[in-house]
Amino acid sequence: MVAPDGKCTIAVDAMGSDLGPTEFIRGLLYATDELGLDCDFTLVGNGRLLKRLLKVRKFSIDPDKIHVHHASEVVSMTDKPIQALRKKKDSSMAQAIELLRDGKADAVVSCGNTGALMAGGTLRMRPLDGVDRPALGIIVPSKKKPFVLIDVGANPESSSLNLMHNAVLGSNYAKAALGIENPRVSLLTIGTEEGKGNSLINASGVYLQAIDKKVINYVGPIEGFQIFDGDVDVIVCDGFVGNVVLKSSEAVFGFVGNTMKEELVRNPKRIIGAALSKSAFDDMKVRLSPDQHAGAPLLGLKGNVLKSHGSSNYIAIANALRIARQIVRHDMIDSISSDINQANDLV
Amino acid sequence: MVAPDGKCTIAVDAMGSDLGPTEFIRGLLYATDELGLDCDFTLVGNGRLLKRLLKVRKFSIDPDKIHVHHASEVVSMTDKPIQALRKKKDSSMAQAIELLRDGKADAVVSCGNTGALMAGGTLRMRPLDGVDRPALGIIVPSKKKPFVLIDVGANPESSSLNLMHNAVLGSNYAKAALGIENPRVSLLTIGTEEGKGNSLINASGVYLQAIDKKVINYVGPIEGFQIFDGDVDVIVCDGFVGNVVLKSSEAVFGFVGNTMKEELVRNPKRIIGAALSKSAFDDMKVRLSPDQHAGAPLLGLKGNVLKSHGSSNYIAIANALRIARQIVRHDMIDSISSDINQANDLV
Repeated sequence: MVAPDGKCTIAVDAMGSDLGPTEFIRGLLYATDELGLDCDFTLVGNGRLLKRLLKVRKFSIDPDKIHVHHASEVVSMTDKPIQALRKKKDSSMAQAIELLRDGKADAVVSCGNTGALMAGGTLRMRPLDGVDRPALGIIVPSKKKPFVLIDVGANPESSSLNLMHNAVLGSNYAKAALGIENPRVSLLTIGTEEGKGNSLINASGVYLQAIDKKVINYVGPIEGFQIFDGDVDVIVCDGFVGNVVLKSSEAVFGFVGNTMKEELVRNPKRIIGAALSKSAFDDMKVRLSPDQHAGAPLLGLKGNVLKSHGSSNYIAIANALRIARQIVRHDMIDSISSDINQANDLV
Repeated sequence: MVAPDGKCTIAVDAMGSDLGPTEFIRGLLYATDELGLDCDFTLVGNGRLLKRLLKVRKFSIDPDKIHVHHASEVVSMTDKPIQALRKKKDSSMAQAIELLRDGKADAVVSCGNTGALMAGGTLRMRPLDGVDRPALGIIVPSKKKPFVLIDVGANPESSSLNLMHNAVLGSNYAKAALGIENPRVSLLTIGTEEGKGNSLINASGVYLQAIDKKVINYVGPIEGFQIFDGDVDVIVCDGFVGNVVLKSSEAVFGFVGNTMKEELVRNPKRIIGAALSKSAFDDMKVRLSPDQHAGAPLLGLKGNVLKSHGSSNYIAIANALRIARQIVRHDMIDSISSDINQANDLV
């Protein structure tokens, strides 16, 4: 997937963001200037608009490294995934995926319609041999180090074999994106008190034990209350559970923040106190912000397709580009392919 | 289930708490003195110890209302559920359930081994006719009003019919414990973006629509990010998902609190600010504390069996007793029984 000279081109679906294409240009600028990203970018979208936006920004990188690929349509957030792809063949998302398919890009980053990106990525790039269903992996902060939660919504109807594949995919993603040599992989379950897990989880645990030490470093099951302890590097679950956990956890952050704000303005003493400690809350926000790890790859495909949140700001976009660059540099797909074959042979 | 004269006796497994039986006595005192609970209590456990503890406390209620039922054994947190019940027939938990079964109590409250309580409750009290599997319902705070999350771990292997029953059980619990006349019931699912839910959820949605307006007030699906908005009164899910959501949400609270503490002591200005606004954090803790709604009933049985957290303090215990009193007063089991029959007839 990487050009022999180490060159890398990231195709960017520049039209799919809630914040508009300008945010992508800012993200590009931040990625090159602040994060020092060394690769080519192909911005896909309204060619005239993108060229105009590029002109007004000063880039410290060689302008030859930024290309524009015109696409006349945009997949909207309300478009139905499969229909969007069939009907909007000249959309920025579809065209960005085509660049990847044609070998003109090494990765695609999009903030657009998740369902359409997953369907488009899967249909056009195809799953790797031995993988039934791709999975969305996402990096989540914890008390200690960030970890990979997989799957957060691609496959809400998982088999135990799917969960074993998720473990292999997540382990490789943790290696590439977090630089962890031998990621500790765990399986999300529920307490022994309440009866141990369910049949899906129990069967998956057997698979994970079968590939432990040979393909992954399986450290056993983990419970909901341990998720943010940071003692593991990969947490495996099905797409339904992962999506609910991810979104409800984000909701708790909002809920706590909301309650805190209400309490901190109740009297003058509290208001002064809050003003004095404001920088602590700002730093906390940065630490807990998903912006640092914003690119969620659809893992298990023959190409690198990354989803960034629809409301990603330029920092989140830059970090998604950074993650895309890292998984390309690590030849992650080759490693996944080899590990999947090995795992399938073992079970 | 209620004595004709409105009298109510709550059997308390006084030995199962992490904090020891003294905390139960304090909880009893708080329930009667502060919450004004009007019922009889039967404390089950080491008779001599309990009588001694009762002597040193001054109660404003008639001592005739507090009874002691001796039990020589204790189910530990590490005991295997079914074994614990078979082998420890004279445990405080087993004896408390026997009092319920024999009609000598209207409800049981225990802080002990959840698995053992669920197994014991189910085996001795039996599910109501028409209910396959009982479910644990819990009251959770939100931005607006508290809501019922059901099931949080009793049945991690649910069918769509189980989820329909959970909706009926949760709706009745919200009526009895939260005093909501026509609770808005929703079904936890994942975003339309990622593909709609999974086959279990889709089939359950059809059932919920079938009993909507007739048995429950079904307001449709809800996503993870909406859980704490407080726009619904009951959120239905299977025991695996509910347990993970509950425990991971609690973990987020801990994670945020932990990060906040770290940030608030980084420099003197922040430390002073934090000191001035300390009362805000204290109030926030109370608002978000589970102590106010600590009794989680195992719903769908022929008797009222309530689980309170193993580390419940006296306030949590008192509130569990209060909730037990409320569901007895509301004849909740009779209402559930009637609603379950009606729901089963409709699908």
